[in-house]
Amino acid sequence: HGSSAPNIVKAPILFMEASFRGIAQVFFQNNPLSGLLILVAMFVQSSRVAVHGIIAIVCGNLSGLFMGFDKSFLSCGLFGYNSFLVGLAIATFDSAEMHMGYNWSAAIGVIITSYFSSVLFVMLGKMLAPYKTPPFTLPFNISTLAFLLVMKQITRNEVNEEPLVSVAANPLTAKAFFAGSIRGVGQVFLANNIISGVLVLVGIMLCSRISAVAAFVGSLVGTAVAALVGEDAAAIENGLYGFNSSLTLTAMVMFYVPSLGSVSFGIVASVVTVFVQLALAETLRVYGLPFMTLPFCLAALVFIVIQGTTSNVISVPLSSMTT
Amino acid sequence: HGSSAPNIVKAPILFMEASFRGIAQVFFQNNPLSGLLILVAMFVQSSRVAVHGIIAIVCGNLSGLFMGFDKSFLSCGLFGYNSFLVGLAIATFDSAEMHMGYNWSAAIGVIITSYFSSVLFVMLGKMLAPYKTPPFTLPFNISTLAFLLVMKQITRNEVNEEPLVSVAANPLTAKAFFAGSIRGVGQVFLANNIISGVLVLVGIMLCSRISAVAAFVGSLVGTAVAALVGEDAAAIENGLYGFNSSLTLTAMVMFYVPSLGSVSFGIVASVVTVFVQLALAETLRVYGLPFMTLPFCLAALVFIVIQGTTSNVISVPLSSMTT
Amino acid sequence: HGSSAPNIVKAPILFMEASFRGIAQVFFQNNPLSGLLILVAMFVQSSRVAVHGIIAIVCGNLSGLFMGFDKSFLSCGLFGYNSFLVGLAIATFDSAEMHMGYNWSAAIGVIITSYFSSVLFVMLGKMLAPYKTPPFTLPFNISTLAFLLVMKQITRNEVNEEPLVSVAANPLTAKAFFAGSIRGVGQVFLANNIISGVLVLVGIMLCSRISAVAAFVGSLVGTAVAALVGEDAAAIENGLYGFNSSLTLTAMVMFYVPSLGSVSFGIVASVVTVFVQLALAETLRVYGLPFMTLPFCLAALVFIVIQGTTSNVISVPLSSMTT
Repeated sequence: HGSSAPNIVKAPILFMEASFRGIAQVFFQNNPLSGLLILVAMFVQSSRVAVHGIIAIVCGNLSGLFMGFDKSFLSCGLFGYNSFLVGLAIATFDSAEMHMGYNWSAAIGVIITSYFSSVLFVMLGKMLAPYKTPPFTLPFNISTLAFLLVMKQITRNEVNEEPLVSVAANPLTAKAFFAGSIRGVGQVFLANNIISGVLVLVGIMLCSRISAVAAFVGSLVGTAVAALVGEDAAAIENGLYGFNSSLTLTAMVMFYVPSLGSVSFGIVASVVTVFVQLALAETLRVYGLPFMTLPFCLAALVFIVIQGTTSNVISVPLSSMTT
Repeated sequence: HGSSAPNIVKAPILFMEASFRGIAQVFFQNNPLSGLLILVAMFVQSSRVAVHGIIAIVCGNLSGLFMGFDKSFLSCGLFGYNSFLVGLAIATFDSAEMHMGYNWSAAIGVIITSYFSSVLFVMLGKMLAPYKTPPFTLPFNISTLAFLLVMKQITRNEVNEEPLVSVAANPLTAKAFFAGSIRGVGQVFLANNIISGVLVLVGIMLCSRISAVAAFVGSLVGTAVAALVGEDAAAIENGLYGFNSSLTLTAMVMFYVPSLGSVSFGIVASVVTVFVQLALAETLRVYGLPFMTLPFCLAALVFIVIQGTTSNVISVPLSSMTT
Repeated sequence: HGSSAPNIVKAPILFMEASFRGIAQVFFQNNPLSGLLILVAMFVQSSRVAVHGIIAIVCGNLSGLFMGFDKSFLSCGLFGYNSFLVGLAIATFDSAEMHMGYNWSAAIGVIITSYFSSVLFVMLGKMLAPYKTPPFTLPFNISTLAFLLVMKQITRNEVNEEPLVSVAANPLTAKAFFAGSIRGVGQVFLANNIISGVLVLVGIMLCSRISAVAAFVGSLVGTAVAALVGEDAAAIENGLYGFNSSLTLTAMVMFYVPSLGSVSFGIVASVVTVFVQLALAETLRVYGLPFMTLPFCLAALVFIVIQGTTSNVISVPLSSMTT
């Protein structure tokens, strides 16, 4: 059929498609168009951060090939979702500058850390397999926390704080509350630009409207809990209490068949996520480390591992899922 | 048979019975009378703390129902033993006042944390099932440590120290040593009143004399090791080195068929528990957190997971146990 | 056959043989002669540390017998490799003096901690069995970290720094680089004497030339990465960046059938080990604790647990291995 010649053309296209799927898989969407839109959202936030994300996802995917892992993981974007976040996080914490400020050490850090995140994905996936639970973004969180600790060990410097949008200040207004909920969706990708948040939501919607609703409602729940317990208004407006809950609720309606039971489970799990986040923030403060999406991982692990122990929710078999 | 009408009467009675069983299950006793006596011991110590314990156990049991978990867990008191401790611990660490000092934030904290402890019980129980090991009081410890971290994150305040009985001071007298061993049994429930300790021992004895002996001897062993390594006399007299070893020895004679082998295993495990406690105390001091019953959990996990690798002890099948 | 009478002679000889095998098992060699040579290397470094190693390995082996564990573990030296390291580490961190400075507390600490390491070996071995992965030196690391924390809790003193060979200082010379790589092999046993390093290498070579090459190349890789990221020249010359990578590469060519695939895996794993080490050093610095061989354990777990997920390497069945 002469299909061998076009391989030179096909292979890079398939690789690109897998990379876009990987970007969308952060929100459990197996759709390259969603990934493309989220990448645009990243360029709106910071071209430098977006470029590091691209370096990372290419490296994470190549690592999967180099290690000889199952190629279906690659084509579904499963080597991409952790590595993409690795790139965004390292670039964000390396420099407060938005669009410039490239340097070699960050790029090399991204390459090594995204490789490690792909190996950790396979390792943790195998360890969690008996519990029919994916490793979520644990590979991203573990490898990036390790990298940040290494940077401190080498330079004895503090990591950068995530840049905050300047805000009007306390008390929290209704407008700031909703802005924080939308930013919360973008903060999954470390973006606090409100346009980025909207683009991410639209990207998810291209693949699944129910997921988009869950992503926004989850962020809303997290933001509301933070407002109730009196957290800092600037942090709330920047979406820092939305992104973990957003991921938790989206995961719950993805891994359990949507129903009244799974939605109520998901809302409760989103509330729990905020408390896990507050506890982790306090723990990691000793090391000057950010909590990233670790609160989501821990809360989601608890609520997904219990599948089968309750008749209130029906779990979707992992094999029938694209993620 | 007209059995539907009395359900309105029966259900609350069964719920109460399950709650009392839950209180006794902290010491592996599936007996409502034991639980009742231990609750009396709690009121002797502090009515405020006891009330929070009741709120917590009701909430922990209701959480099990709300989540649709196996109802046999509820009737055996398995949703209660963690949540009861959650209530006692949060009330104790929230305020140094014994019988007054109620406040809303502690009560809400108890409700959320006892819910989370019930979910964690099912999650950890499922993860440890392949190793035929229960999660012991890990759900209580994890959820309460998280709550204490959240409180610090919100208020930036220190948690209260456990109140200590004023003591004569060094060197440790024989009387103080035995008082510490009896208080050690009560300290499982965070009570340092010597009458509370005696009542707890009597409560256990109602269900199993061998368990009561193990609870006291375990506390004695822990207290002796602490005295030998020269720990603070006031802490020893307050029973702070007895409660974890007390739980360890009781667990060992419960999970292994009582024999010379299991008793010698249990004594060694109780000694190990004290060292685990000293190590954990040092680790948690960085965060200003109490070690609670975590030393018992870790030591007991080690010595119960190894079941089947040694012919010195015979393990009691989990299914034939009431706990 | 009259074989019962010689048992009184035979048993101690078999016990000694098992102890020497245990010393060699630190580097995955099941050979008493290798162990003997490594013990000589320890006496070259410090007679006091070596004596504590002997106390520990005797105690670790006896603990296995006392607990009634599988006797084949004993005869292969599997109760010895963790306990031997326990003895060396506690003696090293207890006192900066090389050949004198004995004291009771260190000896008692060695006895209790080596007992605990044998129990942990069986417990972790059982927990990791579904993943066909041994616990490596995790039992040594966990029990010794616990002991060091207990010591701090009791005495509120800092542990000793590992003694460093006085060095010429920055910049790192080629001679210092190679000296560091050889010392790295000895540092697996906490020895920074260059003769000790050579003797350990010769000991490994007695049993397996490929392992000896891997042990040295691994140390070389770790030392090179440390030099590249600009770590302290004195620490590099003392072999502190070699020993974890040395163990990792030796493990990789032991657990995977030697091939281009397994060697490239091993080199990458050795590089990753250095970064894990830098991250752990930063984490443990908060508690003033040494990282010991924990970086190797974590990196090796990741790369050995993934066995079967990649066709690039073929794993050696655990049962056909002597370790």
